[in-house]
Amino acid sequence: MRKQAIGVFDSGLGGLTILKALRRALPRENLIYFGDTANVPYGSKSKQTVTRFSLDIARFLAAQNVKMIIVACNTASALALAELRKQCRVPVLGVIEPGAQKAALTTKNGRIAVLGTEATVRSKAYPKAIKKHLSQAHIIQQACPLFVPLVETNWAKKPATQLIAQTYLAPVLRSKADTVILGCTHYPVLKHVIKRVLGPQVKLVDSAETLAEAATCFLREHHQNETTGRGTLTVYASDDPARFKRLAACLLAGKIGTVHLKKLNA
Amino acid sequence: MRKQAIGVFDSGLGGLTILKALRRALPRENLIYFGDTANVPYGSKSKQTVTRFSLDIARFLAAQNVKMIIVACNTASALALAELRKQCRVPVLGVIEPGAQKAALTTKNGRIAVLGTEATVRSKAYPKAIKKHLSQAHIIQQACPLFVPLVETNWAKKPATQLIAQTYLAPVLRSKADTVILGCTHYPVLKHVIKRVLGPQVKLVDSAETLAEAATCFLREHHQNETTGRGTLTVYASDDPARFKRLAACLLAGKIGTVHLKKLNA
Repeated sequence: MRKQAIGVFDSGLGGLTILKALRRALPRENLIYFGDTANVPYGSKSKQTVTRFSLDIARFLAAQNVKMIIVACNTASALALAELRKQCRVPVLGVIEPGAQKAALTTKNGRIAVLGTEATVRSKAYPKAIKKHLSQAHIIQQACPLFVPLVETNWAKKPATQLIAQTYLAPVLRSKADTVILGCTHYPVLKHVIKRVLGPQVKLVDSAETLAEAATCFLREHHQNETTGRGTLTVYASDDPARFKRLAACLLAGKIGTVHLKKLNA
Repeated sequence: MRKQAIGVFDSGLGGLTILKALRRALPRENLIYFGDTANVPYGSKSKQTVTRFSLDIARFLAAQNVKMIIVACNTASALALAELRKQCRVPVLGVIEPGAQKAALTTKNGRIAVLGTEATVRSKAYPKAIKKHLSQAHIIQQACPLFVPLVETNWAKKPATQLIAQTYLAPVLRSKADTVILGCTHYPVLKHVIKRVLGPQVKLVDSAETLAEAATCFLREHHQNETTGRGTLTVYASDDPARFKRLAACLLAGKIGTVHLKKLNA
């Protein structure tokens, strides 16, 4: 019998940091990744629009007969998860809940900072999720809208990126948070810069690992995990697969195979 | 008889710099502006995708019975103008040709630099258009993909923007170009930074003024210009009209009225 794949989607390239963690945690699973490069970025767009994009992708993944959908994009998880769960017949895992839980378990002083896109910050999805685990938490949020284009244009190591990080992170330093959530899939690429600005005492929570753990637990609990063979990876992008493949190498720190063009709503 | 409006469109907010010049040059004309904020940016996307977005907008403007369509977006002008002209029944003016002509008339040493998005640079639309006017021109192109997000997040005056401009403009300085085309509607917002890096001897060509002149000439030649009354402005955005209105104030240096939400392909 053919394995049923897990569908993973993101607004573009960022979700590849999640994909990498998933492949490591679940090497036997077939994975289908969809990067919505025709509509990237989601972080500056409205709930309605991000939900529309997300539902289009979920329909495409459902047509590939996936057993589970993982929303690798923080913005889509923050804005569209409820609607996706309402309309999909398979389980839908978002990236906010695992990250929030990990942060609540990590903090010693109860002060947590969330870095994210404008839309993720505005949604207050992280503060709501953190409060479920740690009702007394003191949470500050900081939108970092330039981090995504800095990663997408491969500027992670330039001095300007350090300068921009210093500006964004000044309120985080003042807040005395001991735990900082990297609330956007692109941000782990900037981990070294963020760490340099915040100092070694601050713990960074990267949702990739925690989401991969959550997905593994879910599959095992529901006896849906593959136990034999090696998984495959199929990658789709809604625009310019060649550019996607080129930039993917930076984020995945390795090559991916063919990237298929799949236009939705064209 | 009701005036027939001029339709103007852009990937998002950038085209408002063009709109401002048009309102000044053509105060009697009714203008309809469409900002495709659901799909912004265009500059990192493929010809096919940008053409699809542009045709959707042109169809919407045609349904508003416009007498002319102005493509305020450099990327859409570079990638989609031929297809728009093929499919539209009204004249379509792009932003590349007037800018190229102005640069060819401005340069003294025949060395011209073009700043633009990745897609505009890749299309070679500016070099082709400049060569028509000045076949011996020495042209260099520089993609500046971070300039759009810097403008869209209102970072024009921050030190990081100066640092990024220095990096992008180093090859332009080396090329000894005496004329530099601001080949993206967002870039005039960064004029002060670009000028500071390039020095006072370099002439900046901003397509807004030249496009407005071209539109004025065209309307007069075809006896389609309005000669009485004051023109109106109607603004549509394909996503988040409130955000559009807020950021528009920075680009237009003034308020605009109601911004209507108009989703295409929803």
